[in-house]
Amino acid sequence: MIKKTAFSLCIAGFLSPIFAAEPIQVIQPVQNINLAQVELGKKLYFDPRLSKSGFISCNSCHNLSMGGTDNLKTSIGHKWQQGPINAPTVLNSSMNLAQFWDGRAKDLKEQAGGPIANPGEMASNHSLAVDVLKSIPGYVREFKLVYGNDEINIDKVTQAIAEFEKTLVTPNSRFDQWLLGKQDALSEQELAGYKLFKESGCTGCHNGPAVGGNSFQKMGVIEPYHTRNPAKGRAAVTGKDADRFMFKVPTLRNVELTYPYFHDGEAETLTEAVDVMGRLQLGRKFSKEENAQIVAFLKTLTGEQPAFLMPILPPSVDATPRPKPFD
Amino acid sequence: MIKKTAFSLCIAGFLSPIFAAEPIQVIQPVQNINLAQVELGKKLYFDPRLSKSGFISCNSCHNLSMGGTDNLKTSIGHKWQQGPINAPTVLNSSMNLAQFWDGRAKDLKEQAGGPIANPGEMASNHSLAVDVLKSIPGYVREFKLVYGNDEINIDKVTQAIAEFEKTLVTPNSRFDQWLLGKQDALSEQELAGYKLFKESGCTGCHNGPAVGGNSFQKMGVIEPYHTRNPAKGRAAVTGKDADRFMFKVPTLRNVELTYPYFHDGEAETLTEAVDVMGRLQLGRKFSKEENAQIVAFLKTLTGEQPAFLMPILPPSVDATPRPKPFD
Repeated sequence: MIKKTAFSLCIAGFLSPIFAAEPIQVIQPVQNINLAQVELGKKLYFDPRLSKSGFISCNSCHNLSMGGTDNLKTSIGHKWQQGPINAPTVLNSSMNLAQFWDGRAKDLKEQAGGPIANPGEMASNHSLAVDVLKSIPGYVREFKLVYGNDEINIDKVTQAIAEFEKTLVTPNSRFDQWLLGKQDALSEQELAGYKLFKESGCTGCHNGPAVGGNSFQKMGVIEPYHTRNPAKGRAAVTGKDADRFMFKVPTLRNVELTYPYFHDGEAETLTEAVDVMGRLQLGRKFSKEENAQIVAFLKTLTGEQPAFLMPILPPSVDATPRPKPFD
Repeated sequence: MIKKTAFSLCIAGFLSPIFAAEPIQVIQPVQNINLAQVELGKKLYFDPRLSKSGFISCNSCHNLSMGGTDNLKTSIGHKWQQGPINAPTVLNSSMNLAQFWDGRAKDLKEQAGGPIANPGEMASNHSLAVDVLKSIPGYVREFKLVYGNDEINIDKVTQAIAEFEKTLVTPNSRFDQWLLGKQDALSEQELAGYKLFKESGCTGCHNGPAVGGNSFQKMGVIEPYHTRNPAKGRAAVTGKDADRFMFKVPTLRNVELTYPYFHDGEAETLTEAVDVMGRLQLGRKFSKEENAQIVAFLKTLTGEQPAFLMPILPPSVDATPRPKPFD
């Protein structure tokens, strides 16, 4: 009996997708979340009062209605400044080995403090942002409820935002359903695309649950990548010339929603992105049919988008420092 | 029996707040709503692709996390242009006799078309906005589902947005609870404020379910209002000199959330707004205590804010016209 059961399992494992052997793994449900921090963090994520203008929130450039991005080549910052780089998606970003394209923030908490104080983005500073929150009775009560004491500081602000961002995972894509055994979840074309994606070497960098996000790689391996974008990549962090043009491999989860592509946002379509990646990173020119197969596969990585009630922000009071959009 | 019942009703009417006699009425629940149009309209309301930049949506300036306004003196438009006037709240705006401060749009549908094509706001045009939507398969399907045919035009776009906006009412404020008979819903100070609000003549203009929104009145009746804001008010629509500085009376529902105040956004606090209104419109200087009473009353007009899931927008495809934020 024991032998027969083991044999059956083995057969089953052989016939169904071999989970452990695939270079891409399903997105796991979120665990160990502090829900009170999440609710506070959600408000902060949507609060434009963390910016100097009172107009730009985290959600302005990482829009959760739009795949956690702004779908712009580069973002729009304070006073309509043109951002230096394409805004990466916040979706599944907790799985990244580090944050920003050059990995200069070690985690979501450290990342969240960046744009608030960046003169080209939200253009506030940590001290002013905290003063604004301290003046708002609704926030004062909620910080106390969540953290158990009266202090509000940037550490708690970014911690709460990061906790909210950890919930922004997108499970149950058709690809994940297939990984979990639903054999008809993918079409023949999509399966052919996945096979090609693996066999061509794309999974060398785009692997793991996020299909990327877990290594830095050079943009332009076989052929150099030409761009007018001045971003140096990892070298800006390490100071090493060898790290020039090393960027964090972007997640391909929800890539259908996160156009345009690459750190400079220069690839407008998935077709273009697949073509450039094939030639520059793998030395392979995909045929029109192959390209379409890979694109079809990539679209199966669109998961369930975060569903939540639009947060209602506690109002400012007379003492709240006012935004200065035109100063 | 019939006589006794009538008598009981009469007594009940006498003891509870005399509903019909109050100048302010409760906000009625929304009726006759086309829910499919609402869902489509919600997406359009949040979709920045209706703007030239791909960055500004209806919700940018009428932010439903912030009382349906942007809480700025005047709004920020395409390329950070400074708007000419304070963004009125979208909450309860279906009750307005007309839309915009000068009433130049007869209803919400007509209003919705304005900012899309205004070069200083969303800076697109109706033809481009419709072309963008026509290119997006998710919208094509939803328009067909909602309207029963294949055509997408600006009429349907603005109709759907208006239908969504009709749902943005804020019932069940503490004041409405009091109107409906909950005698302890208001404090003594708040009741004193309401009494003063009525007796001073505020309800001459701020009346009805929206506590305003149902007439045009001159800004500066007893004393002239001095402002650098060039808005002419109703005269810009009628061409009549007599209509200069005639503005739509703003709703006071949720006024705690819709700071700053007046068409030019120059009053930063409710205290200031009440003081200016008393002097300029009524020739009355409220004492500090009286002012505080009225402000306390006004804060009881904050109702339940619209609660809905953040919409997920259908993605653009290769053929979708791209935003041009920096052109």
